[in-house]
Amino acid sequence: MPDTPGGISLQPIGIVHNDVTAEEDRWEEVVSRIEVREDLLPALEGLEEFSHLLVLFYFDRLPPGPRPLQVHPERRPEMPLVGVLATRSPQRPNPIGLTAVELLRREGNVLWVRGLDAFDGTPVLDIKPYLPRGDHLEEVRIPDWLRRLWALHDREREDGR
Amino acid sequence: MPDTPGGISLQPIGIVHNDVTAEEDRWEEVVSRIEVREDLLPALEGLEEFSHLLVLFYFDRLPPGPRPLQVHPERRPEMPLVGVLATRSPQRPNPIGLTAVELLRREGNVLWVRGLDAFDGTPVLDIKPYLPRGDHLEEVRIPDWLRRLWALHDREREDGR
Repeated sequence: MPDTPGGISLQPIGIVHNDVTAEEDRWEEVVSRIEVREDLLPALEGLEEFSHLLVLFYFDRLPPGPRPLQVHPERRPEMPLVGVLATRSPQRPNPIGLTAVELLRREGNVLWVRGLDAFDGTPVLDIKPYLPRGDHLEEVRIPDWLRRLWALHDREREDGR
Repeated sequence: MPDTPGGISLQPIGIVHNDVTAEEDRWEEVVSRIEVREDLLPALEGLEEFSHLLVLFYFDRLPPGPRPLQVHPERRPEMPLVGVLATRSPQRPNPIGLTAVELLRREGNVLWVRGLDAFDGTPVLDIKPYLPRGDHLEEVRIPDWLRRLWALHDREREDGR
């Protein structure tokens, strides 16, 4: 490709604090504190008026070495081999995670959120308000393998009860 | 903050091609081509089975100099001064844009999308499938100023017809 721009350098704006250090089945129930850098406190003003946020974070726990370009979703062999960009796997060219979370409250530069699927200590890159106009899409088409995967999740959850 | 991790370095995975070089009122109608790096072609396999994508891109057209921590949304003086992280302004500590777009088709390493609010030549950082589970939230609360802003948009659009 011509004109490939050079590298892009980012600084974390904060860090995740929670009790999770290994893969978790019930991320949606996990409550985390995002501690935002104190110099950015003015940038948080008014964020508490939103009920939900989009959190961009950096997958800093990936094993070293080259990353695969294709994966079986959730490493399940019964799932097809698909491109990593067709999944939400951390194994992606730029290991940025993106999750919509519920904002429980803001205490100064600390945000209490529910549903963030990031380990304790994860660097946060950006925080955005979730906007019903734009972020909330209707009539979305997904592949069959994803429908099967979600049915598996539902079944495993039922079995776990 | 203790333990602030160091800087994070990313490489663009592709570039946006469209006809837009200045601010646009009708981004949702703009069709763009995202040209993904050829070495990442295998990572796109299966992406075409999704109707909608989340595109993360780098705001590379910001004026130089320090960026404000608070802004009047859309530079409208009738809007309150709020923290940049409570808006989707490009003026944010890490200038990453995030937009949900419609995937029209994939041709090899080129994705045709509708609704990407990024100028021609913008570096793309990540592409993710839009997942109804997780990305589609119901019962979201937003501030009054945003409700007023969207009403202004609707009125301006009516007037423009």
